[in-house]
Amino acid sequence: MIKRIGKHTIEFTEKPRIISAAAVVGKKESEGPLAQWFDKTVTDTTMGGETWEKAEAMFQKEALTFAAEKSGVKSEDIDYAFAGDLLNQCVSSSCGLRDFGIPFLGQYGACSTMAQTIACASVFVESGAADICAAVTSSHFCSAERQFRLPLQYGGQRTPTAQWTVTGSGCMLIAGAENGTVRTPDRIQNITNYTDQTAVEHICTGKIIDLGIKDANNMGAAMAGAAADTIYRFLTDTNTTASDYDLIVTGDLGLVGTELLYELLNKEKINIKDNHKDCGLMIFDLDEQDVHAGGSGCGCSASVLCSYLYKNMLARRFNNILFIATGALMSPTIVQQGESISGIAHLVHFVNTK
Amino acid sequence: MIKRIGKHTIEFTEKPRIISAAAVVGKKESEGPLAQWFDKTVTDTTMGGETWEKAEAMFQKEALTFAAEKSGVKSEDIDYAFAGDLLNQCVSSSCGLRDFGIPFLGQYGACSTMAQTIACASVFVESGAADICAAVTSSHFCSAERQFRLPLQYGGQRTPTAQWTVTGSGCMLIAGAENGTVRTPDRIQNITNYTDQTAVEHICTGKIIDLGIKDANNMGAAMAGAAADTIYRFLTDTNTTASDYDLIVTGDLGLVGTELLYELLNKEKINIKDNHKDCGLMIFDLDEQDVHAGGSGCGCSASVLCSYLYKNMLARRFNNILFIATGALMSPTIVQQGESISGIAHLVHFVNTK
Repeated sequence: MIKRIGKHTIEFTEKPRIISAAAVVGKKESEGPLAQWFDKTVTDTTMGGETWEKAEAMFQKEALTFAAEKSGVKSEDIDYAFAGDLLNQCVSSSCGLRDFGIPFLGQYGACSTMAQTIACASVFVESGAADICAAVTSSHFCSAERQFRLPLQYGGQRTPTAQWTVTGSGCMLIAGAENGTVRTPDRIQNITNYTDQTAVEHICTGKIIDLGIKDANNMGAAMAGAAADTIYRFLTDTNTTASDYDLIVTGDLGLVGTELLYELLNKEKINIKDNHKDCGLMIFDLDEQDVHAGGSGCGCSASVLCSYLYKNMLARRFNNILFIATGALMSPTIVQQGESISGIAHLVHFVNTK
Repeated sequence: MIKRIGKHTIEFTEKPRIISAAAVVGKKESEGPLAQWFDKTVTDTTMGGETWEKAEAMFQKEALTFAAEKSGVKSEDIDYAFAGDLLNQCVSSSCGLRDFGIPFLGQYGACSTMAQTIACASVFVESGAADICAAVTSSHFCSAERQFRLPLQYGGQRTPTAQWTVTGSGCMLIAGAENGTVRTPDRIQNITNYTDQTAVEHICTGKIIDLGIKDANNMGAAMAGAAADTIYRFLTDTNTTASDYDLIVTGDLGLVGTELLYELLNKEKINIKDNHKDCGLMIFDLDEQDVHAGGSGCGCSASVLCSYLYKNMLARRFNNILFIATGALMSPTIVQQGESISGIAHLVHFVNTK
């Protein structure tokens, strides 16, 4: 059942279950601190194909394929795919998931998309609209640079506040629950091997927050206000504090955005420092890997969530996580037109149920 | 309550209510056959602003403002905005709806987005996740040409299969129902003037269908296969035939796509010709307005639905409509890379309840 808590938080009383998750990432990510946690790493930026865009689509395809295999679910048993990416017109998602024949609902929340896909999938399975949904996102350093910034061949200098777009994809399969475990209706024949310990208990949807940032090389600053707003609204709605959670993980604020988030929350007398991590600071070694302010992209929070975070929830190292993916709602066109860059942050509260 | 019918159709037993709708369109649309039905027409392509992109954002802002005013709902009582558009990174939606402070879930289904926003909004209100949601989309001829095709100043020749992107936006406000009318919880103070006769009874989500079309000037052909697939699956799931509906309205197949849709459905022994219309053929006079194969864009089906179709449902000229918005899932980048253009079509079944 779906309950509303406070103004904007949704509580799932049955708790949609994460029945599997998978993450596929690129070479730089495979050299970072989380290397051991990914399902597959790829050293070729085109994945043996012709273009970066097709490679990014392949990342989504592989992530969903791995997640389905792990759970024993066949793709025809997945009722809906909620998917998105950063490319113009979300083509990595539509090309990557085309061959599965799964009813498709494209989502766009910039780098916040992974939390958005999980939130929507959770509402669908909890309400009975679906039994199993996939939540998938991706990003690719080369396709993102080409599209948002400069041709790679140009060798443009990066500013200190710039972040490095993660090459990778994450996929979670989310199933409806009843009586404390996954609903398995007769028509789903193939689910034999799933895990259902980790579940979604709450979601809190982001508002569009604009701090007036106009620097397209400082996404962390553009997103920090949205992260602060969502965290503040969620803690207020649920009447909880930061210390009630094992971990509060933001998507990809990086160094600059993280500092700004602390500052903004401080004004509301909220201190998350003691149990906060940022996926953009976890996936790369900032001293060694020359990524400036950290990682970013839809694939950043998605691949960290679907590998390190999920596996550590299964291992009970964490039992109770707030995952707040953050996005910068901009296009190069409107930045060139002098428009400011808004941010958005969607929150998903994961818990272990067993 | 949400019931599943057949493989992919969702039935809403309470039936989410359309409490208001509004459409704002541009000059060419104001000279077409549906001129009298729109809430506002704008002759200046920049709406007095600086750029087409900002104008498109303004169209969304005005459509939502009109819809809210008509229903007596204040924007703070709208729980979620499901919105999308065709611009890179869906910036018309994020810029247009930024000032309302409504929790925002960006949707991308190309020109099928209006049906997708209504479908997701319906699941949210029927499940109790929300009381009132907005479903909004837009498109703009000038911003779309600049982005997808050629600079307008170049004066490129259009092929006979090309369609004309509609300048406009449509917004529907959708509310949860119980006991045969709109739920009005205490916390919604301001809803005084709404209509709740027209409701959503079913939705059927599209799959990504690829007929191998590679011509970016023939979107109708790229989308027809998806429309045929969704209509076929919906009629099968519900065990109904085309004649059970007052009207079957596709989004923007135009002349070429409509013919192809008839041909594809004919193979399945389905004939929709007698009660089929296409928004792309309704919004313009093809003999007089030089739009070649018809209208297109997210704003096409949205503005036709939120004006002519909705008002004629309120007037009981139609009581039972299938609305199938169709989208071509492509970007200029992947078309230049030789990738084929997939289509998608989402279906919403509107009924009059009173």
